[in-house]
Formats: sequence, C-alpha cells, structure tokens
Amino acid sequence: MGNLLTVGSVAFDTIETPFGKAERILGGAGTYISLTASYFRKPVQLVSVVGNDFRQRDLAMMEEAGIDISGVQQKTDEKSFFWAGKYFNDMNHRDTLETQLNVLGTFDPVIPESYKDCDYLMLGNLSPAVQQQVIDRLPSRPKLVVMDTMNFWISSFMDDLKTVIGNVDVLIINEEEARQLTGQYSLVVAAREINAMGPNIVVIKKGEHGALLFYHGQIFFVPALPLEVVFDPTGAGDTFAGGFIGHIARKDSTSFETMKEAMVYGSAMASFCVEKFGVEGILNRSNEEIENRVKLFRSLVQ
Amino acid sequence: MGNLLTVGSVAFDTIETPFGKAERILGGAGTYISLTASYFRKPVQLVSVVGNDFRQRDLAMMEEAGIDISGVQQKTDEKSFFWAGKYFNDMNHRDTLETQLNVLGTFDPVIPESYKDCDYLMLGNLSPAVQQQVIDRLPSRPKLVVMDTMNFWISSFMDDLKTVIGNVDVLIINEEEARQLTGQYSLVVAAREINAMGPNIVVIKKGEHGALLFYHGQIFFVPALPLEVVFDPTGAGDTFAGGFIGHIARKDSTSFETMKEAMVYGSAMASFCVEKFGVEGILNRSNEEIENRVKLFRSLVQ
Repeated sequence: MGNLLTVGSVAFDTIETPFGKAERILGGAGTYISLTASYFRKPVQLVSVVGNDFRQRDLAMMEEAGIDISGVQQKTDEKSFFWAGKYFNDMNHRDTLETQLNVLGTFDPVIPESYKDCDYLMLGNLSPAVQQQVIDRLPSRPKLVVMDTMNFWISSFMDDLKTVIGNVDVLIINEEEARQLTGQYSLVVAAREINAMGPNIVVIKKGEHGALLFYHGQIFFVPALPLEVVFDPTGAGDTFAGGFIGHIARKDSTSFETMKEAMVYGSAMASFCVEKFGVEGILNRSNEEIENRVKLFRSLVQ
Repeated sequence: MGNLLTVGSVAFDTIETPFGKAERILGGAGTYISLTASYFRKPVQLVSVVGNDFRQRDLAMMEEAGIDISGVQQKTDEKSFFWAGKYFNDMNHRDTLETQLNVLGTFDPVIPESYKDCDYLMLGNLSPAVQQQVIDRLPSRPKLVVMDTMNFWISSFMDDLKTVIGNVDVLIINEEEARQLTGQYSLVVAAREINAMGPNIVVIKKGEHGALLFYHGQIFFVPALPLEVVFDPTGAGDTFAGGFIGHIARKDSTSFETMKEAMVYGSAMASFCVEKFGVEGILNRSNEEIENRVKLFRSLVQ
C-alpha cells in the first residue's frame, strides 16, 4: 500500500436539480476525492482550507471515514468556499448561480511534516498555481502525480495550467475540456497532444458515456452504468478520481492492469455518487456493495 | 445458418463533410445493411426499389458481394431515391440539404416467392407502412424481426410507427430517437417503455459513444472504437444493423450470447464504415480484417 496525499477544496454547495434543492451541503473536490479514496486506503492525507463557518461535524465525519485532516487549515477570518449550481432536465448541463472563493482566494497550501513521504499525489481541481505549489513543496517526487482540472482554468489560466500539466503523470479531464485544451475533436488525437504536453497517461471522462484511459499507446474503455435515475451529478468526476487514485494507492502499482481496475472502481464509485444528493451516495458503503457494483460493470461488457 | 431477408432503400447520396464532397454515390439503408450482412451470410435477400437512373454496375457489385437482388424492383418511369446532406465539424450533426423520394414515394414491396422461407427479417429505415406490408406479406412469422427507424417517422407518423413496433422483436434506435419516442431521458426507462410497446429486445445506438443492448432485463454495452478520423458517418447505423442481423442469421440463434456477439460485429463493421466515404469502407474487407477489428473491441474493455 502506498501513501496517498490529496489536495482540493472542502466547501459548501447549494444544488438544485429537477428532483429538489439542497442548501449549503458538504461539497468540494477534496471532500469527494478523499471520502471516496478512503474506501481503498486509510488514512487519506488531505491538504485543504476551510473558513470560520465550517461545521465541526463535517470535519469529524471525514476524520471518522479515515481522512487525515491535519493538513486542512481553518481560517477564523474568512468563510468557506461556496458554490451554487442548478441542473437542467437532462442533467448534463448546469448553470453556476454563484461562486464565492472566500478562503480559496488566498489559499497557501501547507503540507504537514507527516505528509511528506508521499507515494501518490492527487491534485484535485484547483488553481493551477496552487497545484504547482503542492508539487514544489514535497521533498521528493511521488511515484505518481495525478491532476484534475476544469474549463475555467483552460479558458483563463492556460500558461499556469500548462506548467502543471508538464509536471504530472496522469491528467484526468472531461471530453469537452480535452477538446478545449487541444483544439482537437478526436479524443485519440487530443490524448496524443496531451501526452506531448507532459502526462504519459490521460483519462478522458465522458460522463454518462463512460471514460477512456490512454496508457502509453494502449486504450481502455469503461462504460458508465446505465441508471434509471441520475439524482445529482455534483462531485461525480471527483468521486471517479478518488476511486481511481485510491485503488492505485491500495495496489501500490502503476501498471496498465492496475489502472484498468482503477478506472472500473472510479466509475463504480461515481455511479453511487449520482444516485443521491451531494456526498450522501458515497457515505457508508460496504466493501460488498462496492464489489457488487464493480461486478455489474464487468457484466455490462462481457 | 438462417435465411436473411432485408428491406430498405437503395439510393444515391450526395455527402459533404469537412474532408470533402462526394456526389451521387451509392447509398441507402438497404444497401448498407445488405452489403454488411453479406460478410456473415450469403445470399442476403434484398427487397427494394430503384429508378431509371440507377447504375447497373452498382447492382452488379451488390450481386457479386452475395446479395440476391431479385426483390429489387427497377422502375423505368421514375428516378431513384436521392438524399443530400452536409456534416459539421464535430461530425455528430448534419443538415439534410435535399430529399427526393422519387421511387420510394410509391414503393409497394414485392417479395419474390424464393424469399418467402424467411428466418430473419431486417426492416431497414423506411415508411412504417411499408415495413408493416413486408411483415404482412410473409406467409409465416420469421424467427426474429428487427426494425430500424428514424426521427422523421417518430415526428410525423407515430400511429403507423407504433403499429409496426408492436409487431417486431427487436427495435434498433438511436439515443435521441429513443428519448423522442418515449419522452424519457433515462435510456433504461426508455428501453422499458419500448418493451411495453412490443419489442422484447431494444438496441440503443449512441454513435461515437457505443451501443446498448436491453435483452429481457439484462443489459450489454459495446463501446465505439475511439478513432483518429471519422471521415463520413453516413450509413454507420445501417452498417451496425447489417452486422448485427448478419451475425444472428449466421449463428441461427437469438440467445443473449449471440446478440452480444452481434453487437460487437455490428460495431466493428460500423467502425470500418466511418473511415471512408459512403460504402467504400465496408467493401472488400477480409474475414481476417473483421476478426482483428473485433479483437480491438474486446481488448478495449478487458
């Protein structure tokens, strides 16, 4: 088993879907990633920042799940990051109604001494400058550095973003973002251009259409589970990343075989995520439930 | 091996893509279906109609490929069905520039005596009234009736369409059309509603995102091959249907196992189709090429 460090936002979300509305619930990429990865490897070391409005019970719940929160700074003079969004009927499109950066605006990631023996680093979606700082502040290079990003950084911080991309082993990105980043429509060609930017390995998430792994010239595909109801897609991508890196850290391997399994675990966890509001779908899952879900994925293509 | 009868248009297409333009090339659902199915089962019995402008060399080529064209009527007083379309940069959207029904406007399908011992019937995309006539004109019920349709018939001929759907075993339909037909966004729920209309088996094509088979409560998924270049998507859905029914007729089986294989063969043939203009991609393929392409599909998910 390898040590796992993740960085990402721990925040509040207000989410509206055709099925209902949830106000100021626990959210953030760092939350989804670490909660999910904790099913595969405990502890998950988390670097993040929250504000004076953050609920102690949420932190306590995360600790209980197996997350080491000694790297989560608590600012007394600012509020937590807040995002509000609304999904449309098809659940594939959403409007951002509000973004309050708050503590994230001045986030200076501090990595506790106890985190510094890092084997696997998962850079959740954050400002590329902060992602790069985390890499720089580790005393030695991890075995594998995985990063996630989003369209906002591609549109407005391309230079910073390219610097980080040049320093990671795996880029996880969604279909539209891969096209936006490279200007290529074909995902095969887009993945090759991302390889040329640095990462040897590229994961392209296609939402309800599954995900592709481009691994040193080989391709693996995992479908999304056809679901009757997608209740809330928030955090599905982060959950995927958490399952992906969690399984890799558990296996302490970066082989094609391990990464293929990691794609399936990531997808299985994401399928739990979208069935409920916020993090609810990824809480209190048994190993048996997870393994049964993984079996469903396997039977879908066999 | 079971006898295979297919009905569908044999026509001319003018196609414009970002890669070029091809004028009045051989096209039509019946053409793509029968050419593809002929790799799996010879002869493929074809019921169709062409006009006085049709090229004998195209008919000769189809015959040579193993298609029985004794059911293809040749009208001396009308022209062949003609379609012109233009694809946009992402290749997922197209505009129809022109549709000339010509011989299809009065198509009265005649089924030669030699076709009447039909095991497998593939109803290519056509007016639902004509599809129903073909079913009615067979002296006995085939082992399996598969139909394809499109948005045009759903929008304007829903009653006729529902009659045919009520009389088939398998409906092949694309994602948007499944949603349009049922008013359901979830494909799982849409497939269940289509089951309630008649067909026990539903195939939902998702284009570059693969295809789903709903078989008596079980689900199978086949991805599309990630391709560097999609040259011309015209006929890909018909080619899929041709590979699907062709493999089923070859195996003379309607088991879940056979249909799963048929999904992979259909997808493999469709991946050849989109690599070239018109039918060019599905001509002169060797069994070895087809089996190698099928292996690529298997390796993608294993």
